[in-house]
Amino acid sequence: MHQDLDQFSVTQAVLEQMANTPDARLKQIMESLVKHAHAFARDVDLKPEEWLAGIAFLTQVGQACTPSRQETILLSDTLGFSALVNILAANRQQAKATDPSLLGPFYRAAAPRKQLGDSIAERPDVEELVFYGQVRDGAGRGVPQAEVTVWQTDAHGFYDMQLHGEDKMDHRAMFTTDADGHFHFRTVRPLGYYIPMDGPVGGMIKAQQRHGCRPAHIHFLISAEGHQELVTSLYFSDDQYIGSDVVFGVSRSLIIAPQADPNAPIPGLEAIHYDFTLAPSGGNGAGRVGADPSQLMKA
Amino acid sequence: MHQDLDQFSVTQAVLEQMANTPDARLKQIMESLVKHAHAFARDVDLKPEEWLAGIAFLTQVGQACTPSRQETILLSDTLGFSALVNILAANRQQAKATDPSLLGPFYRAAAPRKQLGDSIAERPDVEELVFYGQVRDGAGRGVPQAEVTVWQTDAHGFYDMQLHGEDKMDHRAMFTTDADGHFHFRTVRPLGYYIPMDGPVGGMIKAQQRHGCRPAHIHFLISAEGHQELVTSLYFSDDQYIGSDVVFGVSRSLIIAPQADPNAPIPGLEAIHYDFTLAPSGGNGAGRVGADPSQLMKA
Repeated sequence: MHQDLDQFSVTQAVLEQMANTPDARLKQIMESLVKHAHAFARDVDLKPEEWLAGIAFLTQVGQACTPSRQETILLSDTLGFSALVNILAANRQQAKATDPSLLGPFYRAAAPRKQLGDSIAERPDVEELVFYGQVRDGAGRGVPQAEVTVWQTDAHGFYDMQLHGEDKMDHRAMFTTDADGHFHFRTVRPLGYYIPMDGPVGGMIKAQQRHGCRPAHIHFLISAEGHQELVTSLYFSDDQYIGSDVVFGVSRSLIIAPQADPNAPIPGLEAIHYDFTLAPSGGNGAGRVGADPSQLMKA
Repeated sequence: MHQDLDQFSVTQAVLEQMANTPDARLKQIMESLVKHAHAFARDVDLKPEEWLAGIAFLTQVGQACTPSRQETILLSDTLGFSALVNILAANRQQAKATDPSLLGPFYRAAAPRKQLGDSIAERPDVEELVFYGQVRDGAGRGVPQAEVTVWQTDAHGFYDMQLHGEDKMDHRAMFTTDADGHFHFRTVRPLGYYIPMDGPVGGMIKAQQRHGCRPAHIHFLISAEGHQELVTSLYFSDDQYIGSDVVFGVSRSLIIAPQADPNAPIPGLEAIHYDFTLAPSGGNGAGRVGADPSQLMKA
């Protein structure tokens, strides 16, 4: 005979119905999800009309996704959930590696391949910077032949995808480190920007009176045989939003400041020097949070 | 200066960014949501690839929604979240009213208006039943002129929308109670059915080895001036899934069994007798969980 469910036993009833899940990890994740989701509803004594607003919001988030826009990731980012998953991944790493940061929605796998010293900006309309550094392993040795993918906004705060759609790539490139793991390139200073504010997540940000901005940053995806892929970003120290990134991507270790630098490989330009450390492959990696929206749409 | 975030302080950082939310209730709900979502990720030590699978799943749920299908509600239903919201709403009611149940995705506001005693089945191909009852207020007095909307599957387990799309209504009707609050109609015994199994939620149900079935039931939406709208369903006692409804909609007080009944208003048919009690309007109502998918798509 059916037993009446109360606000606590309904949780137990759901767990019982999920008890035969063959995949142990899926079972563990879903059990925890149900417990926390139910605890949330009880905590706030969620009302039917509020539930309805939440359903409509989540539906709109899914519907706002296109092959070039991933609103669900944006929601995760703005709730600090993506940053938390990155932190948990970094905690699992045994070796000390460079802190990860969010991949974000503007990564593209096929960036133009360039030579060391090239500029990633097709037509720089402001003073250039030089970026140089070394890719290292956990023992501090240079990693030769590492693939370094770089992408950022232009000097006015726009990614190529925002200006040109899929048609043209700019302010992104792929470099290969030299025999000592060194690489360098020229670029312009990127600008911070608003996350997309015209969708449901933008509506949430406005309702919370948050500024909706990310501090200026340069993205890096670095891979090399025998090492875990590193996805990170470097943030400009003097950006007004350095302490209040709307997606919580900034770590202190990832903050940079261009400066005059006599050791820079290209003289006469302000320089940024940053060395990256990769973790050996095989462990529970930092991995990456964020993904190519078009891949997620196909999934 | 930016402080590095760890797996706990990242939660605090999100709460701080939301601290200026002007709507106090939105602030309360979002704070609790963030705390519970982060606690979930920490509890299961969520990995980037699992996060990615979750993002893809949620995106697919939103994308599966159409004007006639609400996959996000289905997800909420199958996780017992909708049932929990109903339970919380019933707990807030001071007066004793009939237990609510899920509205579900097959409600349509404009059901055909019929006369007391009519059949809601256009061409019954099995033995009919008679349903009779009274709509009452909290003091047990009959409520005249109450609007009773009824909908159910046909004898083979299909709703009109599933057979005819938007083109034709069947097995649904709207009745008005008489001067004493009584009403009755003829119908056929509905059949239990699978929730839609061809979408992402169906994939989850299969991965959890759940049967995916709802026990046979008749839906009611009852409204009357001065009273809260009641959304509920009555469930057939001998259905094999009466104790394991995939959306947790069954309460013991909502279980029915057709039987020979000398008091039934139409002789010669098995009868179901059920009286409904409405709560007075003005309180924190039981409300309804579930909604017209087309409304949500417009929202």
